[in-house]
Amino acid sequence: MENHMENAVSFPELIRKKRDGEQFTPEEIRAFVLAVKNSTIQEAQIGAMLMAIWQKGMVAEETLALTREMMLSGEVLTWPAEWAGLVMDKHSTGGVGDKVSLPLAPALAACGCKVPMISGRALAHTGGTLDKLESIPGFSIHQSVGQMKKILEEVGCCIVGQTENLVPADKVLYAIRDATATVDSMPLVTASIISKKGAESLCALILDVKYGKAAVFKDIASAREMAQSLVEVGNKLGVHTGAALSRMDNPIGLCIGNSLEVLESLECLKGRGPPDLQGLVTCLGGRLLSISGKAPTPESGEQEIARVLADGTALRKFQAMLEAQGVSAENARILCSMDADYFRVLRRAQSEVVLEAQAEGTVLEVDGMTIAEVLHKLGAGRTKAGEPINHSVGAKLLVTAGMKVKKGDPWVRVHFETPPFNAKLQACFQEALVIGSLDCDRTQDTPLVSEFILPE
Amino acid sequence: MENHMENAVSFPELIRKKRDGEQFTPEEIRAFVLAVKNSTIQEAQIGAMLMAIWQKGMVAEETLALTREMMLSGEVLTWPAEWAGLVMDKHSTGGVGDKVSLPLAPALAACGCKVPMISGRALAHTGGTLDKLESIPGFSIHQSVGQMKKILEEVGCCIVGQTENLVPADKVLYAIRDATATVDSMPLVTASIISKKGAESLCALILDVKYGKAAVFKDIASAREMAQSLVEVGNKLGVHTGAALSRMDNPIGLCIGNSLEVLESLECLKGRGPPDLQGLVTCLGGRLLSISGKAPTPESGEQEIARVLADGTALRKFQAMLEAQGVSAENARILCSMDADYFRVLRRAQSEVVLEAQAEGTVLEVDGMTIAEVLHKLGAGRTKAGEPINHSVGAKLLVTAGMKVKKGDPWVRVHFETPPFNAKLQACFQEALVIGSLDCDRTQDTPLVSEFILPE
Repeated sequence: MENHMENAVSFPELIRKKRDGEQFTPEEIRAFVLAVKNSTIQEAQIGAMLMAIWQKGMVAEETLALTREMMLSGEVLTWPAEWAGLVMDKHSTGGVGDKVSLPLAPALAACGCKVPMISGRALAHTGGTLDKLESIPGFSIHQSVGQMKKILEEVGCCIVGQTENLVPADKVLYAIRDATATVDSMPLVTASIISKKGAESLCALILDVKYGKAAVFKDIASAREMAQSLVEVGNKLGVHTGAALSRMDNPIGLCIGNSLEVLESLECLKGRGPPDLQGLVTCLGGRLLSISGKAPTPESGEQEIARVLADGTALRKFQAMLEAQGVSAENARILCSMDADYFRVLRRAQSEVVLEAQAEGTVLEVDGMTIAEVLHKLGAGRTKAGEPINHSVGAKLLVTAGMKVKKGDPWVRVHFETPPFNAKLQACFQEALVIGSLDCDRTQDTPLVSEFILPE
Repeated sequence: MENHMENAVSFPELIRKKRDGEQFTPEEIRAFVLAVKNSTIQEAQIGAMLMAIWQKGMVAEETLALTREMMLSGEVLTWPAEWAGLVMDKHSTGGVGDKVSLPLAPALAACGCKVPMISGRALAHTGGTLDKLESIPGFSIHQSVGQMKKILEEVGCCIVGQTENLVPADKVLYAIRDATATVDSMPLVTASIISKKGAESLCALILDVKYGKAAVFKDIASAREMAQSLVEVGNKLGVHTGAALSRMDNPIGLCIGNSLEVLESLECLKGRGPPDLQGLVTCLGGRLLSISGKAPTPESGEQEIARVLADGTALRKFQAMLEAQGVSAENARILCSMDADYFRVLRRAQSEVVLEAQAEGTVLEVDGMTIAEVLHKLGAGRTKAGEPINHSVGAKLLVTAGMKVKKGDPWVRVHFETPPFNAKLQACFQEALVIGSLDCDRTQDTPLVSEFILPE
């Protein structure tokens, strides 16, 4: 009896260890993750453990073990041997107007890569890639592993939701982290992101870690710390992983809101996207090609990405992906034609309001956080997982930082339905436009990416 | 909708507040306690909250609010007006061989007090008053509030288990604290103890906060901090509360184990108890009489207690309490007769072994913690709530600290059944006897209580 007691893991003792700031052995982490997966640990114990980890952190070895055990808690995908060096993905920590995945996946496919992008839905103030794609009638994010392989074989990229048996421990932990204010913990974020990417059996991964007023990380130092953790663990799990630190104050591009962001992504794929979006797609894609060894240098990688965006080959990959994931050939053709009338396919919100600048001067900033919060209230986002959202709600900016405006100039068009865009919400929205003196000369031609964290 | 969202308490936000070391408002604490009582908060959230409280603590106002809300989560007892100033109780943080409650409750009753002692069961290494009393055939700890009032009316004291509707929030929190390594948190311990005593609507309360190798608190400083918290919150809730800090290294008295401790308590009530036990009962009782105003000074209170122990009036109260709580008149009479053969009533374990001193010298210490741990393994204690225990398992010391022993002298008699007292356990037990050189002169005539923490 004694031996039995000594061999079995005592969860109160395990919690006490982390409570007191001690380090776990890999065996202890395995026992915890298995118990989470198999529901053999009480939910109260998971909550207490997550809070103890939030408070005391984990050293690199613990974070690596946690990530590995979470990855191994479910299915790990396998790919044909001839795809060696070609399977890659990108992950962003979330930003306002961040639709980079939509043009990037087909651009990489156009370069000959295989991109099994398993993405997420909108939560809090940041949009979700899956929600954006679901604004396209017929598009299905539900694809089995077999279907994914077939699409990767035929098209080269797919953008899908998480399958049931991929990293089941993360599903349990994520729901509890959300309920217990333990989401933003370095080791827990690392394990959650990298375990899922590890289960995709990637060759290479680029992470877009955002910092700024409209990002999870408010300053570059905390974003850098996060990026270093992600890069270290990713590489130790055998995925060539790099991270970009990119600014997130103004929204990316001019469009915010699900169907509007699809529209803008298509413009980008047609070589006509806003420069900041085009720049970010090119930069992240180029770096990924060089990390994977597909391109000799980041610069040559960027040229490759720029070429497939300019010559329409990325656009044709996107069109093929739409069809492969359930969009009718006719709708895919309309969306991807150069003179597309997007609202023949995408649903347009019933009401629109144009807001006017209330002063003369130079646009110093368009505050993405404020815009996201108001659009959230108009139904474009969700507070809890599972809530419905209105894909047609959104905003199109008519100005960018650095532009001169006169009082009364239109600066944004807001698309809405129910709830209405009332005076109170309009007043909130107006605060997003920050105007400085006319002689202030601030142009936004610096690239969004400030630095890279790369494997040693 | 917005207003609704703003008024409702968000538990993730509440957890975040404490996670970040912020202070709760009384309303927030009320919302948490109500949700715990009504099961409208997830268990994972309770676990995370308890860990955040463990890590970040609470200021005095928060601890007071937590205690008050827990007390108000269930029934609060009421007493006849003529008992004003008479209703009192004692609580100990737990020690090895601590049977003080058994003689103290009837001694106070013999002084004219009303003692509605609501007590607990053994857990971990310390014994439980209820378990001790249940070693007496027929004794029932289950008494309704109406029955308690009747016994207090007729006898003056009762020792009972917690009723279902007294402080229900504590039942939930205690079980979760036990599972999540959050038991030993100052505010949580304070709220748990004082909420239950507050719900007894006491006039006065004495707390025996123990420190030392065999206590929860290993040093006097942490015991003092605990005592100060308990005394402050108790008095703010309207109970005249004082605390004694008492040493807990050697066991209290000579007997450890449920039925053996009943036997020793009866000896104490007959004026023949071991001096340390007699001294602690007198000291705590005297102080309680003075705190409540029943005695003009602690010294006169002690004289009162000493008198009722010496003249048999406390013994007669105990006898009456036994009968009122279900023990047959015949058994109560046998136990309380001056020439009692206790094992006519109490069950004696089937086996006994006497251990011998393995060296010559002076007994420096009899380590209570080691003794408790071995007896626990022999079945005298429990690891989890609800586990059965063997009331007959125990040990009687034949030496005390300060005595001279020769090699081969018997020093303890161990009563056991199944599991057997094997060689390994005997070797463990032997380590409890710490022998120094013969010329070492250490007598244990200092009283156990080192200092008092009293209301300002």
